[in-house]
Amino acid sequence: MTHRDNPWIIRTYSGHSSAKESNKLYKDNLTKGQTGLSIAFDLPTQTGYDSDHILSRGEVGKVGVPICHLGDMRTLFDGIPLGKMNTSMTINATAPWLLALYIALAKEQDTDPSILRGTVQNDLVKEYLSRGTFIFPPEESLKLMGDVATYCFTNIPKWNPMNVCSYHLQEAGATPVQELAYALATAIAALDEIRPQVANEDFPRIVGRISFFLNAGIKFVTETCKIRAFVELWDDICLNRYKVEQPKYRRFRYGVQVNSLGLTEQQPENNVYRILLELLAVTLSKNARARAIQLPAWNEALGLPRPWDQQWSLRMQQILAYETDLLEFDDLFEGNPEIEKKVEEIKANALTELKQILTMGGAVKSIEYMKRRLVESNAERVRKIESGETILVGVNKFVESETSPLVDGDEVFLTPKKTAEDVQITSLLEWRSSRDGHAVSKALQDLAHSARIGENIMPVSIKAAQVGVTTGEWAQTLREIYGNYRGPLGISSAPSNRTEGLEELRSEVDRVSEDLGTRIKILIGKPGLDGHSNGAEQIAFRARDIGMKIVYTGIRYTVDEIVESALEENVHLIGLSILSGSHLSLVIEMIEKLKERGGGNIPIILGGIIPDEDRVKLKERGLAAIYTPKDYEINTIMKDIIAIVHQRIDNKILTS
Amino acid sequence: MTHRDNPWIIRTYSGHSSAKESNKLYKDNLTKGQTGLSIAFDLPTQTGYDSDHILSRGEVGKVGVPICHLGDMRTLFDGIPLGKMNTSMTINATAPWLLALYIALAKEQDTDPSILRGTVQNDLVKEYLSRGTFIFPPEESLKLMGDVATYCFTNIPKWNPMNVCSYHLQEAGATPVQELAYALATAIAALDEIRPQVANEDFPRIVGRISFFLNAGIKFVTETCKIRAFVELWDDICLNRYKVEQPKYRRFRYGVQVNSLGLTEQQPENNVYRILLELLAVTLSKNARARAIQLPAWNEALGLPRPWDQQWSLRMQQILAYETDLLEFDDLFEGNPEIEKKVEEIKANALTELKQILTMGGAVKSIEYMKRRLVESNAERVRKIESGETILVGVNKFVESETSPLVDGDEVFLTPKKTAEDVQITSLLEWRSSRDGHAVSKALQDLAHSARIGENIMPVSIKAAQVGVTTGEWAQTLREIYGNYRGPLGISSAPSNRTEGLEELRSEVDRVSEDLGTRIKILIGKPGLDGHSNGAEQIAFRARDIGMKIVYTGIRYTVDEIVESALEENVHLIGLSILSGSHLSLVIEMIEKLKERGGGNIPIILGGIIPDEDRVKLKERGLAAIYTPKDYEINTIMKDIIAIVHQRIDNKILTS
Repeated sequence: MTHRDNPWIIRTYSGHSSAKESNKLYKDNLTKGQTGLSIAFDLPTQTGYDSDHILSRGEVGKVGVPICHLGDMRTLFDGIPLGKMNTSMTINATAPWLLALYIALAKEQDTDPSILRGTVQNDLVKEYLSRGTFIFPPEESLKLMGDVATYCFTNIPKWNPMNVCSYHLQEAGATPVQELAYALATAIAALDEIRPQVANEDFPRIVGRISFFLNAGIKFVTETCKIRAFVELWDDICLNRYKVEQPKYRRFRYGVQVNSLGLTEQQPENNVYRILLELLAVTLSKNARARAIQLPAWNEALGLPRPWDQQWSLRMQQILAYETDLLEFDDLFEGNPEIEKKVEEIKANALTELKQILTMGGAVKSIEYMKRRLVESNAERVRKIESGETILVGVNKFVESETSPLVDGDEVFLTPKKTAEDVQITSLLEWRSSRDGHAVSKALQDLAHSARIGENIMPVSIKAAQVGVTTGEWAQTLREIYGNYRGPLGISSAPSNRTEGLEELRSEVDRVSEDLGTRIKILIGKPGLDGHSNGAEQIAFRARDIGMKIVYTGIRYTVDEIVESALEENVHLIGLSILSGSHLSLVIEMIEKLKERGGGNIPIILGGIIPDEDRVKLKERGLAAIYTPKDYEINTIMKDIIAIVHQRIDNKILTS
Repeated sequence: MTHRDNPWIIRTYSGHSSAKESNKLYKDNLTKGQTGLSIAFDLPTQTGYDSDHILSRGEVGKVGVPICHLGDMRTLFDGIPLGKMNTSMTINATAPWLLALYIALAKEQDTDPSILRGTVQNDLVKEYLSRGTFIFPPEESLKLMGDVATYCFTNIPKWNPMNVCSYHLQEAGATPVQELAYALATAIAALDEIRPQVANEDFPRIVGRISFFLNAGIKFVTETCKIRAFVELWDDICLNRYKVEQPKYRRFRYGVQVNSLGLTEQQPENNVYRILLELLAVTLSKNARARAIQLPAWNEALGLPRPWDQQWSLRMQQILAYETDLLEFDDLFEGNPEIEKKVEEIKANALTELKQILTMGGAVKSIEYMKRRLVESNAERVRKIESGETILVGVNKFVESETSPLVDGDEVFLTPKKTAEDVQITSLLEWRSSRDGHAVSKALQDLAHSARIGENIMPVSIKAAQVGVTTGEWAQTLREIYGNYRGPLGISSAPSNRTEGLEELRSEVDRVSEDLGTRIKILIGKPGLDGHSNGAEQIAFRARDIGMKIVYTGIRYTVDEIVESALEENVHLIGLSILSGSHLSLVIEMIEKLKERGGGNIPIILGGIIPDEDRVKLKERGLAAIYTPKDYEINTIMKDIIAIVHQRIDNKILTS
C-alpha cells in the first residue's frame, strides 16, 4: 500500500461559558475525530482577573472559558486523561499560572508531569503589538517567558514552552516580511534571555523546544513561500547565531490558525473557501508543513460558532488529510524556480527588517517601532480594499446575492447562557470560602518572594495552584511587584503620508470645525478587557489624517475612565470599539454614566461584532451609529462622524 | 502593479424546466460574475426525442432544459447576444442539431456565425462507455463528429467542435491512466476520421481546434500530475503522429467539471471542500491550467441546486481567481522531482494502455474492451470504500454528526414546476401547427438525402432549424438511415476474480436458491432515458459474483419492455436504477403494468437520488426497498435482495 505521512495534529480553538460547558464541547470534538485540544480562555483569565473583578463584568465566558482555580481546571478536563492528550493553551501573560494549574491537575490525575505534551503560547511581544492581553512590562514579561521555558526544559521536556506568534501580527495587518522579521526577532529575544540561565550543552535542546504559531492568508502561494522562508531563516539563525549543530533542534516547528482578518460578514458562506485555501499554504509543502492546525468556523466573523459549525470546520482538515493524496508525496515545490525566487525575495526583505530591529536593541526595545509599522501596514491594507485594488468577493466585487439559508434562521450562532457569569461567580465564591485560607496566604507570600528575588516562578505557582489560589490572586501578587503596563498605541499625532484622495473629507472637517469654533475632537475608546485594537487604530489613523483631533488611549479602560477622559478633553464624539461580545452591558453603562455626569449630549458610535437584535436595543438607547466588519469603507464612517458632529451643532443652536 | 494572468472562463452547468426559466437563471448567473454559459439539456433533447414522445414522459426539463426547436433556442438566449457570449453546450448525439439551432439563432440576431465562440461536447465514444446518450452506431457517430469539426473549421473557426471527454470516464470509475488512454484514443479516432477529408495544409489547424473536457478527483496531487501528463502526451501525439509543427496547435486546451462521483449524501456540506480541492488540480499548475471551469454545487448529490447553491459554487471560482495570488505566478511545479516522477509514471502506463487500444483497431473498435475495464475499475473503487481502504469522511469514517442547518429546512432544493412538461408540450404543439409544413418536409427530405449520400450534415441541418424542424424530427430522420444503437454492457456472465470475502453471501445465495428450486435470478433495469448506468452495473456485477443469475439489458428501455422481459425470464426480483429524477412516474407505471400482467408478486427495489417525500410515496405503493448514494455498501444491498427473495418464498408457502 502507498506510504502516507501521519497527519498534523487536528484541533479546534474552542471554549466558552464555563469549564463544564467547554468540557462537554471538547469531548464531542474528540469523538468527532479531533486529535488534540486547543483551549480558548476568556479575557479575565487571560489578563489575570477573577470572574468577580469589576473589569471582568460582561466578559466572563465570552471569548473563551473562565478558569479561576484548580477546581475549574478539574472540570475542564473531566474524563480527559492529560497524559494522553496534546493540549494547546492560548495563554500569555498568565501562561505560567495556567501551566501551573495544568501540572497540578496532572498530579491529581496521578500523571507524571514529565510526560505531558502540549503548548502554551507564552509570547508577550505580540501581545504588545496586537493582541493586547499583556499585564506586566516587557522586561518582566520576558523574564516570565524564560521561567516557563527553563522549567519545562527540566521538568516537562516534551512541552512547547513558547509558541512565537506571527499569527496575531498578520491579524494586525502585517505583511509577510513583517511577520517573519518580528516573529524571528521575538524568538531571538527569548533565546537571548534564556541562554545565560542554562548550561551551554543544554542550550541546543532548549532552542529545539521553541515553536511558532503562524497565520496563513488568502494569498496562499506567497504564504507557502513565507513559510518556506521561515524554515530556512530559522535554520540559519539556530546554526549561525546559536551554534546549534544538530539539524533536529533547528527544525522550524509550527502550529497554525488561519486568517480571520479576511473573513467576511457579507456572503459569509464564502469564508469556507478562504479557510480552505489558507489551509493549503501550511500543508501543501511537506518541507514546511504545520505540526498542528486549528481552523476558524465560517461564521466566526459574525458570532460564536455552534457545534455543527465547529464540526464542519474539523471536517475540512480531515478531508484534506484523509481523502486526498497530499500526504503520499514528498515536497511538491523543491526545485521549482518560481517558488525559489519568491522565497529568496521574502527572505532578503525579512533579513533587512530583522537586522534593523536587532540594531535598535532587539524586539523588546523595538516594540513601539514595530507597532507603528503594523498600524501603517494595516492602513495600507484597508486602503487597498476601499479602493478595490484588493478584491474581496461579496464586499467590493460580486456583491449581488441570493438570501443565504445558512444565515436565514433563528439560531445561527451559539448563544452562551446569560447566567454563565453568575454561575461562575457563585462557584468562585464557594471555592474561596472552602479552601485553607492560611495555605493560600502562605503560597501567595512565597510567590511574591520568588518574584522579588528573581527565582523561577513555576515551582511556587504550582504549589499555589494546589492549595487553591485563584487566577486573580496570582496575577495581582505579581502586578504589585512588576507593575501594570500600558502598551504602545501605534498612532502618532502627525498625519501619515497617505492623505491623497482625502481632500474632500479634509475640507469637510475644516468647515465643520469652523462652525464649531474649534477643531473636531473625537475620543476613540476600548472599554473592557478586549485587546483587539486594529479597528480602533484604523479609525483613529484616518480621523487624524483628515484633520480631526483624536484622543486615543489604547486598550483596557473602565467605563468610568473613558467618561472622565471624554469630559476632560471636551470631545465632540466618542467612538467605542468592543469585539469581545460584551458591548451591550458596556455601552449601556457608558450611556448612563455620561448622562449622570452631564455629558449626555456627546454622541456615541460603536464598532464591533454586533448582532441585529443588539443593534436595535442599542439604537433605542440613543447610540448614534453602529459599525460591523461589513462596513469596510472607513471614509464612509468618517463622513458619518462629521455629519453626526455637525448635527449636534444644529441641535445646540435649535435648543439654545 | 503585479502582473496577473486572466482567469479561466467561469461557468455553471445549468438549465432546467423550460427555456424561459433557464434564460432567467443564465441572466442571473451572468449578473453574478459568470463569464460564460454552460447549457444543460434534458434527456429527450440529448437523445433526440421531442418533449411529447412516449420515452420523454417524466423527463422533460428534469436534468436540463428542453430544446425542441428554434423557438425554444430563441427563448433560451433572450437578451443574451450570442456574438458576445462564450457558450458551452453539453450535447453529443444531437450536437450537429443543437449547433445548427445556435447558428440559426445567431443569424436571426444578425450576428455573423463566423465570430461565434463556444464548445459542443460532441464526443460519442464516452457516451458508449459511460454517459449513455448515444443514438446512432459508432461508425455513423464518428462521421457526424467529423461533420461538425470540418464545418466549424470552415465556418466558425473559433468554435471548439469536439470536447473529448475523460470527465465521464472518471465518473464511471476510470483510473487516471484509463482517463488518459481512452480520451487520447478517442481524439485519435476523431482526427484519423477527419484527416482524409481536409487539405494537408489545413490539418494542423483542425488539430488545434480539438479540445478536451476533464474531470478532477479528490486525489488532487495525482490529478495535477494526470493533467500535466495529458499536456505532454497530447503534444507528443500532435507532433509525432500528426506532424503538427506549430506549438500553438499542439496546445492541450481543456475545460473542466470536477468530480461528482465522490460527493456524498452524508454530511453533504463537506462536499464544498471536495469541490475546492478538486478545483486545485486544474488550476494550480499554470502549464496545465484549465481554460474553462464549471463546478457542481455542494448538494448535487441530493437534488437540483437552488440559485443560492449555484451562486455559492460560482463564488468558489471567483475567490480562487480574484482573491488569491495564484494567477500572479508562473508554473509552481516545473522542476520538482516528486511531480516529475509521478507524471512520468502516469504517462508510461497510459501509453501502454493507449498502444493496446490502437493495436485493437482504435477507440471505436475497442468500446467493448474499454467498457469492461471501466466496470472493473469501478468495482475496485467501490470495494475500497466498502472495506475502508479508501476513506470517505462522513461515510466510512467520522460519521458522527450534528444536524446540519443546510439540509434541515423545507426548501433545500430547487423543485421544478410540476407543470413544466405540460407547458413545454403545449408550446411544441403550437409550434408544429404554426410552421410551414411544406418547408419542413422539404428540409427533412434534404437532410435524409444528405445523410444517405454522406454529405456534411451541417448545412441542411441549419436550414432545417430555420424552417422550424424539431429535435425529434431531425433525430428520427437520421435514425431511419443510421439505425438505433444498443451500447455494450460491460458485464460478462462469468464471475470476476474479485470474489474474495464474498463467501458468506455466496452460500446464502446457494441456500435460498435451493429453497427456490432454481437459482436466484434478478433483473436490473434502467427505464426511461437516463444513461447513467454505473450503479446498475455495480449491482449486476456483485450479484453475479455472489452467484445470482442476472438479466441486465442496459439503458433506455420503456417500462413495457422491462415488464415483458421480467415475465419472460421469470425473475425473482426487479432492481431499477433511475438517476434523472423521473423515478416517481416510472416506478408507479412499472408497478401498475406488472400487476396488470400478473407479475404483481415480483418485488421491486429502486436505486437513485430519491428525496424523502418520494420515498414515502413509493413505499406506500409497495416498493420493497430504496437505495440512494448514501448506501455505499453493496454487500448490504445484496443481503437485502437475498432476504427479500427469501421472504417471497415464505409468503408463497403461507398463501399457497
